[in-house]
Amino acid sequence: MEINTLNDFNPVLSAKKEQTLQFQFNQYLLKKIENGSLPPGTKLPPSRLIALDLGISRNTVTHVFDQLKAEGYLTSKKGSGIFINPALPMITERLLKGAWAAKTQLPGLSTYGKNLKEASLESSHLIIDKKNLPFTPGVPDHRAFPEKIWTRIQRRHTDRNALKGYDNSQGYLPLRKALTDYLRLSRGVICNEDQIIITQGAQQAITLCALLLLDQKDVVLMENPGYTNARHAFLTKQAELQPLEISTNGINVESLPDRTNAKLMYTTPTHQYPLGGILSASQRLKLLDWAATHNVWIIEDDYDSEFHFHGKPLASIQGMAKRTPVIYIGSFSKTLYPALRIGYMVVPKELTGTFTEAKTHLSGESPLLPQAIVADFISEGHFIRHLRKMRLLYQEKWDHMQFLVKQNLASLATPIAESAGMHLALRIDTKSDVHLQTAFAKLGFGSTALSSYYFEPPVEKGLVLGFACTHYQERESGIVALRKLILNKNL
Amino acid sequence: MEINTLNDFNPVLSAKKEQTLQFQFNQYLLKKIENGSLPPGTKLPPSRLIALDLGISRNTVTHVFDQLKAEGYLTSKKGSGIFINPALPMITERLLKGAWAAKTQLPGLSTYGKNLKEASLESSHLIIDKKNLPFTPGVPDHRAFPEKIWTRIQRRHTDRNALKGYDNSQGYLPLRKALTDYLRLSRGVICNEDQIIITQGAQQAITLCALLLLDQKDVVLMENPGYTNARHAFLTKQAELQPLEISTNGINVESLPDRTNAKLMYTTPTHQYPLGGILSASQRLKLLDWAATHNVWIIEDDYDSEFHFHGKPLASIQGMAKRTPVIYIGSFSKTLYPALRIGYMVVPKELTGTFTEAKTHLSGESPLLPQAIVADFISEGHFIRHLRKMRLLYQEKWDHMQFLVKQNLASLATPIAESAGMHLALRIDTKSDVHLQTAFAKLGFGSTALSSYYFEPPVEKGLVLGFACTHYQERESGIVALRKLILNKNL
Repeated sequence: MEINTLNDFNPVLSAKKEQTLQFQFNQYLLKKIENGSLPPGTKLPPSRLIALDLGISRNTVTHVFDQLKAEGYLTSKKGSGIFINPALPMITERLLKGAWAAKTQLPGLSTYGKNLKEASLESSHLIIDKKNLPFTPGVPDHRAFPEKIWTRIQRRHTDRNALKGYDNSQGYLPLRKALTDYLRLSRGVICNEDQIIITQGAQQAITLCALLLLDQKDVVLMENPGYTNARHAFLTKQAELQPLEISTNGINVESLPDRTNAKLMYTTPTHQYPLGGILSASQRLKLLDWAATHNVWIIEDDYDSEFHFHGKPLASIQGMAKRTPVIYIGSFSKTLYPALRIGYMVVPKELTGTFTEAKTHLSGESPLLPQAIVADFISEGHFIRHLRKMRLLYQEKWDHMQFLVKQNLASLATPIAESAGMHLALRIDTKSDVHLQTAFAKLGFGSTALSSYYFEPPVEKGLVLGFACTHYQERESGIVALRKLILNKNL
Repeated sequence: MEINTLNDFNPVLSAKKEQTLQFQFNQYLLKKIENGSLPPGTKLPPSRLIALDLGISRNTVTHVFDQLKAEGYLTSKKGSGIFINPALPMITERLLKGAWAAKTQLPGLSTYGKNLKEASLESSHLIIDKKNLPFTPGVPDHRAFPEKIWTRIQRRHTDRNALKGYDNSQGYLPLRKALTDYLRLSRGVICNEDQIIITQGAQQAITLCALLLLDQKDVVLMENPGYTNARHAFLTKQAELQPLEISTNGINVESLPDRTNAKLMYTTPTHQYPLGGILSASQRLKLLDWAATHNVWIIEDDYDSEFHFHGKPLASIQGMAKRTPVIYIGSFSKTLYPALRIGYMVVPKELTGTFTEAKTHLSGESPLLPQAIVADFISEGHFIRHLRKMRLLYQEKWDHMQFLVKQNLASLATPIAESAGMHLALRIDTKSDVHLQTAFAKLGFGSTALSSYYFEPPVEKGLVLGFACTHYQERESGIVALRKLILNKNL
């Protein structure tokens, strides 16, 4: 199709004549391309003619042609002229009439979707942008990351064609093998590589448990306070959450009900999140007994056992017998880095096929290259060395935190010492710890309101501060700022 | 704790005396460590004494000590001796009694879990290991991957600390911006970067639609034949699937019901998967009209629009008006490589927050480094160039396939020419195309049985062959082998 003229161009003149004309001509052509009046393959008149015709400078026309060529809307054929790019998709007629234009409302959401939307609207005024502010919980120290070693291993695997295609939904075998050894040694987990499934962070592992173990409205026993994102995963199945009471040493096993219709229990027995209690050996046995008697699954989330400082971690509940009703979950988000998004779960032998298939249905395979790097990082011994280094580093930061808290927050906040690993939970007598969190964020410091970890009263108030990724000055100014904030709110 | 003797070692002697003794002593110590009889920190007797006491060579003892030290079970302190590694977790007593030991059965699965397990058992004899055999559908040509450029961009981003922490669940902003421009230009998709959500492959995008748009037992209109993994995602919500009839030009829009209670419809209008039909502009308008009238969501999965050879792709249904009841989905699995696991979805403005939050609940954020690489790869123009190159390459392979099929399978199979892009769908008159797939795999060639794409009769039989990642010889030998196979089965 060849056209001779573009005669409906009506620019609005202004002081910045040249710039505005160029912009308007650009928009004018773009609009005609997008609404189909200049279909792909159409030949435009020569720039000289357009300029003459419209009374604008030829420079303007050629500048706009160049812009639109760079963006792919126009192409030029030597000796032939300028064309609307023939490779552009055929723009279908966008009728102003038609049923979809008359509709003002989109189709509906699921029950879960509606609940989510409502909840978002309610809490939207409290949304604090999740930047990596100092004291944001859950962030490891990037500066101490063994960059050189990691990059060297990465270079080894980057060009491998085998890591570009499809592999195994269950996860890269060398990684599962390396994990089998590591978990046995460090956590007493009993399994072979066939029982391990690599997931997109621990979150996907918890989601898979929700999908495969829960029907709608099933009861889940959930630590209260506990890991908020675990609750979110169970709520995708509209589960009914019942609270597990937390004491200084983790779950209060004595308070478990004699009768229950719960399907599963979510626990962090090695280092309760966020309060830090450690479930003793005898209490673990009792918990396992109770779960077996009442036919309840235990999800054992071992999120940061490598970093708490109150004695060596107890062996996993999963490994306490050859066959336990336990799904063991872990992640590299805190031991390596969060954006890696590699987690893992250990499931009973007879369920590995089912869990793997469900993972395929949710998201297909996990990316191969990062798995290959982590596998070598572990099997070459770098991981163990890295953990040892980070443990010492975090211990130092913890010592400093203890000093600062004692010095500045003595009567204003109560530190929950067991919580320390990568974060410190503080009890604070305040009207609203959520407002405290927001105010602290405005000063440039992250934190999470302690009350947000609860889903049932009675609720404790305070702040959880992640100190792993802070440096000396940040901790000092942060705790001093927190002191002022608490004092001001008390006035 | 210090012990003086290890006196319950009872080895079984055999011909390979030294090796067996060493192995048995190793296992003996390991067992004692693992069952808690030698707790962490225990000091072992000197190797000399053990050897004397047990009547075995000192070499045996020190070899085993060295093995267990290398594995982390033992440590040695200079001048002090050998210890059970104090850093090992406290192994809790593994009682043989206790409720969990008496139980032979694990707790139950959800309804979805049970269905999945049963289905796996039924089809387990048909499971073909998903290797990257030539002709496996869905695999792009790795050899043509722009490795140097990709690695250069990767190097730019690998050390960035900002890409290690938490960013934005919705996805890395520069990638969403790059996608906005690319999708507008190539697919006529109308959106800004706030409407894009990065997902773990297209699979997670479809799963999110299932989670947020479907309640249990809701009706989904599904192309028949159609994308199997899409069905799997809807079945995680136990949706009821109703078939959409497919003709030469995609969905038979005339056959859409006058009344329906369907919640959503899954479509691949630009290049129907797997038969390849293209929905014309007027049919798209009718489809959109129908969906708007009946309040049905359209999931538009644009899986390989870049590669089909039957004219330029029509603009997306999503962009046919300012506001459409369409969720647009795409992925880089076929344009870059599958193991990258980056997909994307474009959702209506008012739902971006809800979809993002649901994604957080399913799996948290997407890995940042790959997103950063893809963003630059697109915005620096490499992606467009790469697509152009692959399009030419795949066209050549398609020409060769057409020749081979004509030459070898003339009366034995009917090629569905529209299907070509990266695969060819063949109709084959055979008793069981699943058995044909298995037999072909045993000869070293991948494929997918055409019947497996159907969930409702009438079912067509044949094979889908992915030719994108094949080279000349593989195609020749593969098609010749297929000919023989079909002839043999007909005898």
